[in-house]
Amino acid sequence: MTERKEFRDLAEPEDAREAIASLDLTPETEHVPLEKARGRVLAERLDADRDVPGFDRASMDGYAVQARDTFGADEADPAILDLVGEVHAGEEPGIEVSDGEAVEISTGAVMPPGADAVVMVERTDEHEDGVEIRTALAPGDHVMLAGADVSAGQLALGPGTQLTAREIGLLSALGADEVPVRGKPRVGIISTGDELVRPGNPLSDRSGQIYDVNSYTIATAVEEAGGEPVLYPHAGDDYDEMERLLLEAAEECDLVLSSGSTSASAVDVIYRVIESQGELLLHGVAVKPGKPMLIGRFPNSAYVGLPGYPVSALTIFRTFVAPAIRKAAGVPEPITATIDARMAVEERYGEGRMRLMPTGLVEDEQGRVLAYPVDKGSGATTSLVEADGVVTVAPDTAYLAEGEPVEVRLFSPDVQPPSVFGVGEDDPALSRLLDRLDSPRYLALGSREGLRRLRNGVPDFAVATGDTTDASDGTELASYSREWGLVVPAGNPEGIEGLEELVERDLRFINRGTDSGLRTTLGNAIADLADERGTTRHELVESVSGFEMTVKAHESPARKVASGSADAGLGLRATAEKLDLGFVSLGEERVRVLTNPNRESKAGVEALGEVLDSDLIGVLDSLPGVRP
Amino acid sequence: MTERKEFRDLAEPEDAREAIASLDLTPETEHVPLEKARGRVLAERLDADRDVPGFDRASMDGYAVQARDTFGADEADPAILDLVGEVHAGEEPGIEVSDGEAVEISTGAVMPPGADAVVMVERTDEHEDGVEIRTALAPGDHVMLAGADVSAGQLALGPGTQLTAREIGLLSALGADEVPVRGKPRVGIISTGDELVRPGNPLSDRSGQIYDVNSYTIATAVEEAGGEPVLYPHAGDDYDEMERLLLEAAEECDLVLSSGSTSASAVDVIYRVIESQGELLLHGVAVKPGKPMLIGRFPNSAYVGLPGYPVSALTIFRTFVAPAIRKAAGVPEPITATIDARMAVEERYGEGRMRLMPTGLVEDEQGRVLAYPVDKGSGATTSLVEADGVVTVAPDTAYLAEGEPVEVRLFSPDVQPPSVFGVGEDDPALSRLLDRLDSPRYLALGSREGLRRLRNGVPDFAVATGDTTDASDGTELASYSREWGLVVPAGNPEGIEGLEELVERDLRFINRGTDSGLRTTLGNAIADLADERGTTRHELVESVSGFEMTVKAHESPARKVASGSADAGLGLRATAEKLDLGFVSLGEERVRVLTNPNRESKAGVEALGEVLDSDLIGVLDSLPGVRP
Repeated sequence: MTERKEFRDLAEPEDAREAIASLDLTPETEHVPLEKARGRVLAERLDADRDVPGFDRASMDGYAVQARDTFGADEADPAILDLVGEVHAGEEPGIEVSDGEAVEISTGAVMPPGADAVVMVERTDEHEDGVEIRTALAPGDHVMLAGADVSAGQLALGPGTQLTAREIGLLSALGADEVPVRGKPRVGIISTGDELVRPGNPLSDRSGQIYDVNSYTIATAVEEAGGEPVLYPHAGDDYDEMERLLLEAAEECDLVLSSGSTSASAVDVIYRVIESQGELLLHGVAVKPGKPMLIGRFPNSAYVGLPGYPVSALTIFRTFVAPAIRKAAGVPEPITATIDARMAVEERYGEGRMRLMPTGLVEDEQGRVLAYPVDKGSGATTSLVEADGVVTVAPDTAYLAEGEPVEVRLFSPDVQPPSVFGVGEDDPALSRLLDRLDSPRYLALGSREGLRRLRNGVPDFAVATGDTTDASDGTELASYSREWGLVVPAGNPEGIEGLEELVERDLRFINRGTDSGLRTTLGNAIADLADERGTTRHELVESVSGFEMTVKAHESPARKVASGSADAGLGLRATAEKLDLGFVSLGEERVRVLTNPNRESKAGVEALGEVLDSDLIGVLDSLPGVRP
Repeated sequence: MTERKEFRDLAEPEDAREAIASLDLTPETEHVPLEKARGRVLAERLDADRDVPGFDRASMDGYAVQARDTFGADEADPAILDLVGEVHAGEEPGIEVSDGEAVEISTGAVMPPGADAVVMVERTDEHEDGVEIRTALAPGDHVMLAGADVSAGQLALGPGTQLTAREIGLLSALGADEVPVRGKPRVGIISTGDELVRPGNPLSDRSGQIYDVNSYTIATAVEEAGGEPVLYPHAGDDYDEMERLLLEAAEECDLVLSSGSTSASAVDVIYRVIESQGELLLHGVAVKPGKPMLIGRFPNSAYVGLPGYPVSALTIFRTFVAPAIRKAAGVPEPITATIDARMAVEERYGEGRMRLMPTGLVEDEQGRVLAYPVDKGSGATTSLVEADGVVTVAPDTAYLAEGEPVEVRLFSPDVQPPSVFGVGEDDPALSRLLDRLDSPRYLALGSREGLRRLRNGVPDFAVATGDTTDASDGTELASYSREWGLVVPAGNPEGIEGLEELVERDLRFINRGTDSGLRTTLGNAIADLADERGTTRHELVESVSGFEMTVKAHESPARKVASGSADAGLGLRATAEKLDLGFVSLGEERVRVLTNPNRESKAGVEALGEVLDSDLIGVLDSLPGVRP
């Protein structure tokens, strides 16, 4: 192992920002065809090299005349001119206009020599003996002079202009077919970690493989920031290959990114390559979660190492790297990339270093945006979807009060708060109903977590099982029943008939977690059985092998049964039938949709209410074991 | 000519919207690779088809143990376990953990059979006789169970989700390599008009050709709205070819757009094809500028005809067509696409039909957005760049007051108000200075128009020539001198020495327009000469052949001289030297940069002041004939 350079103290965030600013990411100017120029940024000022229009043109359909021939003409006393020809748009006038003559002309046509004005067709009549003109004209009337729109030599567009439809229009008018634009910084993405597999390839759970989340996430974020991502092949545990790829990326790209590997050897390869070929500027930043951050320089490229956890990688990218890419690309940060919000809940913090707090957004009844901290125990991927952006909390801030204004830097400029936000029981009917709404957010964290969060006032609604309604649990918007019981293999080979077998026989059982309402319902049924038998709930539970083997989602126990690793799982009839498994019914439970009393008139909550009113029956009809 | 269907009354705007809504633009679902999925919209809900992680994994570096072996352990009384092996991320554990045993484990590695908890390495020490564990563990400590992040069967993403970096992250975690997304509506763009030439091709001014502005402008706007533009070749005046292209586009696309041609024959071809192959739904809408709008239907495609004037085409596209494309693409309109503003000036209107008012934006000192009407006499292309969006004015609104709130629908979501907005004299030094600012907007409409608009309070600054300072002309931020005179062919073949030759000889002269400060300076010089000679200014002016031949930009007269179509042009020494022409100096004039008194502390105005302070001298040094 190479000796690692010692960075005794973590760098200040400002120093990290400066270290990145000191790296040169600026790509060379490119010339792109006009039709590919959308969203690009002009590399230099463009001056018009021609007049627009390039000729004096008629701006009306009518007749081209000498204005002086119409002096004094009006409705009562029209001028009569000889019609000597016509000229249409796109053709060279074949005729001259002399005294007393008129030429029929279309909008956009070249003014024939001699003519200095156009009379609109509405103010004329054509007779056998000529054109009757019922108005007096001044020279220049209805004529657009050459260069009147844009003149040769005039500034057309300044450097740094971002090209939208209208700028493309101006460039078209000037006849540009290629445009000099700022290059997009090339950002190489190196994937490290023996356990990572690129999406689309088979995965071995037994060998502890997981899909590579950061490569595509960061590649997408690079594109969003105006860079051009280059994904290098995954080297796996071949460290020579990894070194080769790193050097290749450092040669080909303006910036190389890798994200923290759990494998120390991979980090060592990166260290070795940077120290031998370039310079390590900084290791570790005094910001949560920036401790593993690495900043360095290759001869032709910069290097930044991101943390491995996806939300952390995106957070550090968004805070430190994206601004540098935008600057190099010349693309200003869209104003939507940052949003003002107020804290939905209080948040205590006291670690003494700057915190980049992953933050979810929800709107209140008035459409004001509220922010709440995410990522307290939810999984890596789940929090990736719940977190909308980052709030920077200063090192000396120990406490963010409810209602305190915060600035949220969104992970993507396209991120918007969900139309409606719910937390609670994982339920197939509800899940189908939510498909009918635009951009809802629902976290299936269980009835208990749903009610807990609803009491904290963050979500718009919660979904919980059970009959009792506590006044503090919000207002019931709708409820329905679902049949629950034991999911068993098809044909019920063990002949399970009810809870009794579970308690009495040595079956491999799979339960749901304690946050699940279904688990509570099972617990209550076991308590009833204990009462019947004159024993305790605890004693019966102890006799169930696997009662503590809990899994997360409502289908998970059934899937364990389907895979043969369990004899029975807690679940729903709907799930058993969907997966073609057997089902032993143990009863029905109510599923209740409860709204936050402060959000009842929020548009998204009203839309949810309408979907429940109009579609609930249909959805329940389409699923087995559920009814109003 | 085919008989055109008669639409006696213009349709109401609402009917036009409904007619477009009745057209089916929805494309088929596509499957795109994950790395191309950014910004696309999920066509269907995606449920997780696997657990994430797919195995129980260590969430810390440390030792995998049986929790019960650590019961009661603490700093004072550690547990000692036998170290029996190690397991790293990405490998299959080759060992089982039995009573009293520990296995070294890395973050992310598969939990070895038998182990149910991980102790962090910080709470341990490795000795010769085993691993000392200084804390008690509960089963599950530092273990992430299979499916704890995402469980198979769980909803991953709902239909209609727009894919940003974090959703791509979730899809990566699930191993997706292809994603079902809404297709982009294919929008065919047909270019009609004999006089149009595609950018990049040579243009004949004599034949009245102009570049095709609308095709690329609308194509870009189609992309911005989430569609896929298809540009069909320009058919010119070959109407059979145009008919063939129209039918081809109608077959291949979801929507076909053309923009108003000045050629009646082209419109007739479109009429004939729609009437024979499809259905004409609507012709003409009671909205300014929607009169020429056409809506129809082919068997497999929709058709909308846009007006020909570029700002009008973009306005009608933005108002009626873009929302339909967005809906078909499933892409919500970005919140930045609409902006609340207040009128910067009053605007009277009384035509009794709805008006789509092209609108420019400027920010006040507090960063509030002000809107003002654009397109009053500026050229087609110039107004394309000045107009930021559209304000809809209801038919019964005769009057918009200054300060009245309006909603501006921006032409592109990326459009932002300029950092600083000026109007005035076309001047090369100023133009170079503005290059040093981010996103300024400067309309070179002449000193007179600059002062006029500054008095109306719309721009942040004006640039005007002349010495006298009127208090109502704002505050002078900077001024400098420029040398003006007659630009003549290289070598001055006519031997022109001053104004006298212009007045006395029959020279072909080219002047600037009356809004130009340079023109005023020339007029004053001629008046002085007239005084000297005891005659009138008018008399001298009459004797200059071409005094009324005015062109727009500061370089235009010089270019006429360079092309041989004039003997002398009004201009600057800087221009003459740039174009390698001769120059007869007639004097110097002051150029003054004047700020709007209400905008002096606006950030963009301060930035302009800083650039003038720091860079004016350098720019003046780099140009001939200018000095502080």
